Formats: sequence, structure tokens, C-alpha cells
Amino acid sequence: MNDFIFHNPAKVYFGKNQIGHLPEEILKIGKRVLMVYGGGSIKKNGLYDTVKKLLDENGIETFELSGVEPNPRHTTANKGAQICKKEKIDLVLAIGGGSTIDCAKGVAAAALTDDGDVWPLVSNGVWVTKALPVIAILTNAATGSETDGWAVISNMETNEKIGLGGSALIPVVAFENPEYSYTLPTYQTACGAFDIFNHVIDNYYLAGDATFDMILEFQEAVMRTVVKWAPVAMKEPENYEARANLMWASSMALNTVLDAGTVHGCACHLLEHELSAYYDITHGHGLAIVTPRWLKYILDEKTAPAICRLGVKVFGLAETTDAMAGAEKAIEALSDFCFNTLGLKPNLSDLGIGTEHFRDMAEHACAGGKISGLKELGADDLEEIYKMCL
Amino acid sequence: MNDFIFHNPAKVYFGKNQIGHLPEEILKIGKRVLMVYGGGSIKKNGLYDTVKKLLDENGIETFELSGVEPNPRHTTANKGAQICKKEKIDLVLAIGGGSTIDCAKGVAAAALTDDGDVWPLVSNGVWVTKALPVIAILTNAATGSETDGWAVISNMETNEKIGLGGSALIPVVAFENPEYSYTLPTYQTACGAFDIFNHVIDNYYLAGDATFDMILEFQEAVMRTVVKWAPVAMKEPENYEARANLMWASSMALNTVLDAGTVHGCACHLLEHELSAYYDITHGHGLAIVTPRWLKYILDEKTAPAICRLGVKVFGLAETTDAMAGAEKAIEALSDFCFNTLGLKPNLSDLGIGTEHFRDMAEHACAGGKISGLKELGADDLEEIYKMCL
Repeated sequence: MNDFIFHNPAKVYFGKNQIGHLPEEILKIGKRVLMVYGGGSIKKNGLYDTVKKLLDENGIETFELSGVEPNPRHTTANKGAQICKKEKIDLVLAIGGGSTIDCAKGVAAAALTDDGDVWPLVSNGVWVTKALPVIAILTNAATGSETDGWAVISNMETNEKIGLGGSALIPVVAFENPEYSYTLPTYQTACGAFDIFNHVIDNYYLAGDATFDMILEFQEAVMRTVVKWAPVAMKEPENYEARANLMWASSMALNTVLDAGTVHGCACHLLEHELSAYYDITHGHGLAIVTPRWLKYILDEKTAPAICRLGVKVFGLAETTDAMAGAEKAIEALSDFCFNTLGLKPNLSDLGIGTEHFRDMAEHACAGGKISGLKELGADDLEEIYKMCL
Repeated sequence: MNDFIFHNPAKVYFGKNQIGHLPEEILKIGKRVLMVYGGGSIKKNGLYDTVKKLLDENGIETFELSGVEPNPRHTTANKGAQICKKEKIDLVLAIGGGSTIDCAKGVAAAALTDDGDVWPLVSNGVWVTKALPVIAILTNAATGSETDGWAVISNMETNEKIGLGGSALIPVVAFENPEYSYTLPTYQTACGAFDIFNHVIDNYYLAGDATFDMILEFQEAVMRTVVKWAPVAMKEPENYEARANLMWASSMALNTVLDAGTVHGCACHLLEHELSAYYDITHGHGLAIVTPRWLKYILDEKTAPAICRLGVKVFGLAETTDAMAGAEKAIEALSDFCFNTLGLKPNLSDLGIGTEHFRDMAEHACAGGKISGLKELGADDLEEIYKMCL
């Protein structure tokens, strides 16, 4: 059993009637705010107006960085950092999904560097302990960025998509109103749901000999939540209970409650970040394509019991003493969930992706060394997994 | 589904090799520390010496409040507050179980009042937003006080045992090394384990229509942890895995992870606090006596499905369509766990308690109004439950 540090300081206001607390939380920190958001859906659904009015009424001065991309670019974060420096911004307010929040974190970190450039922090793997405070208003259940200390930033010039981490990147406050995700398109709902699922499964398989039963069971509960509620939210976008379950699952999946002594794995995330970096595809979709293949690839007598257990506990398959057969059925059930229930296209070729960069992507994903986990994976392994996804 | 605020800021160092971080965490706050501890078991097992040496080596000045009682008295907390005022203490360091940590919180709150008296805060139900910072070194898995915002303080002159709550009472840092609980006697291990169990069950029964499936399943996972590991820790006091599972369950049970939108119930705790206030019995033992009787008393067609589910999910009973019969079996299984597995004496009369104060206790427990929960309970109900415990 491993030692661990548990620190989960983000304060979350969850529910329908919480946004009124925004001004008081901002005013604890300052009066000059950079609002960060994406393509403007928050202008269509009224959230922008609600927030702007609240801030104006409370004498909070606002500046704006809009047009954050789905895989947020370092150049966009840098643009925000320049505004922060010029306008002496006190805090960064992200309004959107994971990409927007990630970008806001990049802005917050870069704003306190001399040259306002986030990329050296990202590419050098700097652990960020100094950043402007971030407050997040979440509109999409997916990345967990609303309460964790991570941001993923893309550099399209170098085809790199890399995580930036640090204790200073944990939002000080997050607002999670499931209603804000009502207008999310079905495809985005499905992709977000699988992102949540994968955050847990990437970790689950390492848990066997490292952690508490309780944590393993928590992980299964979160995955079951996704399996149960994602299809409901897809069919009934304004089903509050479905949106709420997904939103809280998003936060629980990465706020370290499910870690406690486990070694946090990220094989699928590393595989997928390369796909997004080269092809700018939707993260959750890439994960759905990669995950069942990864499981198939790592399946052997040692990993079979854990994969078999996933089938029983998460997909309700019958218990069996034949772990290998059970594991194969579990992978089938997962594939069925991804490609039928969530309706995501199953192959890279469906997204216009061929073998052209597989070797580069595999090597790049392993640039920091072999990928740890229940089964160590090197570049040859990853290339093989990419081929299975074609 | 209810709105809620989730805030769980305590930083926990969990495991065998973490105490070395104590000086750096103290020095972030100050250099003058009041060490609070109980009857001296930390002197026997070496923990006192370890901590004192670490603090001395780092130029941290220490003062002491020792002899904290199992049901900590307001007079003891006040003694500590006077030391804080006189010696200009920067932070209160609790070393012990829940009683010691609760007392330290009382000290921390009273130290910042004009007259240094904790009792007006307790008796007036003041929500404490100003207190000296508390760091906790936990030696007993039980109350959850190491990461929550509550303290229970007793006034033996008035036979009152009351909770004091507040955001300022959440320890800023907690150290949880399961080895520190190795020397805990079997009886205390059993009582602590049932305290954990009850923190969850007091909440579980309210969850049905108020919260996420995920949270209900988290609650069951924590209760299963207690059922599985308490008997192991009792038989093998130095079983690290058992002590670690209980310790993390203690923190998870009350650090608000299991709350998320539920209405936090506390019927059994209110019933028990009266017993401790009048008879100074061990809290966890009182809870074990009260809980099965409370379940029996509230069992009806409306509550049966939840109680039946407890039997299936936590005690591994067979699923049944007859909820009433299933619930009865669940209560039997719980009684068996309390009185056979944990070995706690089943009746109040075993502890020398008679009917003499039942009416007073019942009325006092309801002084703030009927006890909410799946079934509202008034003084007559509580008196009846006490009688069932004889």
C-alpha cells in the first residue's frame, strides 16, 4: 500500500441556484477579471449575460478572451496572459468546458512568468506553484479540469498536446449547474461521458495491489454512473438528473478522491493526446476508439482478472471463474457501450486517419520513458495499438 | 436533487513516511505551537518523542495541554485557550484520536474570543469562522474529526454534549499513519469502527430520493470497509492494511465526499450524545447499542426498501422481493456485527444505565426540534428507542 497526499481544495457550488455566489467569491480575491470562453455558445444560452450582469452589478471590471479552441492552443493562452499583464488582472474566470478551463489555467500560469509564454512551462514539465487564481463555471461534464490541477495545452506548430500540472492550477472555486450543459450537442455529451469513464479506467487497472477496496469500489461506482446516465442525457438533453450525475462524476473522477494510494495511470490519455495533436479530433472520441483496443492488447493471464471484474461490476456481466473469457466479454461490453450506446464511430479510418504518423506518435508518447501501468508499454506496443484502431 | 456546496480543503499526508512534512507545514503558519494530547499513550508508543524532536530541531517553540478526556470537557478546552492567549500561540497541534482533535478545535475557537470561553460558542450553536489553525496527527480511526469541521464538547456540569461546527475548524493539515493506531486496545478499535459505520448509516437512509446513485454506492463501499477490516484490526492490531482501511474510511465518512446533495442525518448521534453526556460512556459503544434499535423503530413499509438494501449491499444478504423480511434480516445482521463480531455489550443495562434519565435525554435531544430523517422523530419516539436499548 502506497503513501499518498490527498489535497482537494477547490470549493464547488453545485446545483441550480448557486451562481449568485459568484460575485462574493470573486470579491474575496479582487475586482479585475479576465473572462475566458469558447466559440460563443454561452452567448446563445444566456449564461454570458447572466454572468456579465452579476459582475457589472457588483462593480467587478471585466476583460475578455474568447474563441478558445476545443484543443486549446498555447498561442491563445499567451494572448490571455498578455491581457492579464497589461490590465493587471486579479483572477481568470473560465466559462465553458474542459478546453476553456484548461486554457484559463494556461493563461493564469503564463501571466505570472516574465515573458507571458505558457509553452516553456508546458514543454519543460514545470510543476506550477504560482498562477493567478482561476474560478471555473462548468458547462460540460468531461475533463474534470473544474476541480483538478491539470491543463492540456496544444502546440499545433510542433504537433504536441501536453499536460501542464501544478497545485496553483486547481480552481479556487467551481460552479457546476447541470442546466448549463442542457444545450450540449449529443456528440459532445457522448465524448465528454467517455472522457470521464476513461479517467477512471486508466487508473482502475493499477489499483489491484496498491490501494483500498473502498477506492476500487468508488471507481466502479463512477463508471457505472457514466454507463447509466450518458445514454439518458443523450436522449433527453434536459434531464436534470442525468446531467447532474455526469457532472458530479466528471469532478469525482479526477479530484483525487479515486486516487488514494493508487498509481495514477494514463496509457489511453497518452495514446489519445497524440491523435488530437496530429489530427485535432475530439478527445473523448479518440479515447473511445483507443480504450477497447488497449484493453485487448494488454489482456493476458495477469490482467484478465481485473478486466473480467470490470465487466461484472460495471457492465453487469455474470460472474465467472474463467477470467480470460470474462475479460473478453468485458471488452465486448465496453466496445458496445462506446460504439453503439454512445454512437461513436469505432475506427480511426472513420475520422480520416491513416497509418502515416503512427510511428512518430508512438515514439513521441514514450518520449518520457515507457508508459507505466499494469503492463509497461513502449513505442512498439503503442504503434501496435494504433494499428488495431484503424 | 438538492443543491450543495462541496468544500474539503484539509490536506492529508497518509502513510508510513509522512511525519517528516510536519515542520514545513507548521512553519507555513508560525513558530509557536500548542501541543494537545490525551492520557499519555503517545508517550508510551514514542509518537510524542518523534514529534517533539522534529519541532525542536526546526526551531518551533512548543507548549502543552495534556490530559484531554475521552469526552472532552469545555473546561479543558478553556485551559488551552488561556495558554494560547498568554503565549501568543500560532497554531494548535492535536496528537490523538477524535476527542483530542475535538478539544484542540475547541481551544482554537476559544483562543480568538474575548474571554477565551468555548462554551458560549457551543451552547449558542455559533458557526465558527475564526479560529487558530489546527493540525491533526491522528492515532485512532473513528470520528472523522481529522478532516471535518466539527467538534463535540461536553459540559459535565449541565450534562450536555454538543457539536460545535464551523469552516474554521477544519484542520488545515492532517497526518494519518495507520501505524499510530497499532497500540489501540481492541475495545477502542471496535468502538471507533462503529463510529465510522454510523456516520455513514446516519446519512445513508436519507439518500434515497436526494442524491446520486454514485454517492449511495460510495456510502456502501465505506460501510463494507468497516465490516471487512474492523475484525481483522481487532485480531491483528498491527495489520497495516486493516488499520489503513479503517483510517481512510474514518476520513471519507465525514469529509463531505459522501454528502453531495444528501441531507446529513444524525438521529443515532443525537441519541448517543445524550448517553455520553449523562453517563460518560464510550461514544462508539453507545452508537452500537442505539443503531439497531433505531432501525427497528423506524422500520415500516416506507423505510423497508432502504434497510433491506443495506443488508444486501453491506452484509451480503441474498436479494429479496420481500423488503420487510429483508429489512428484518438486515437489522439482525447489523446486530450480529455490533454485538458478536465487534464484541460490544448489547444493552444499556450492561453499562449500568437505567431508565432514570430517559425522558430528560429524549427531550433534550429534541430541544432544537424534531429529528429529521427518513422518519421524523420526537421526544416520545426517542424515549421509546432508549427503552428498547435497556
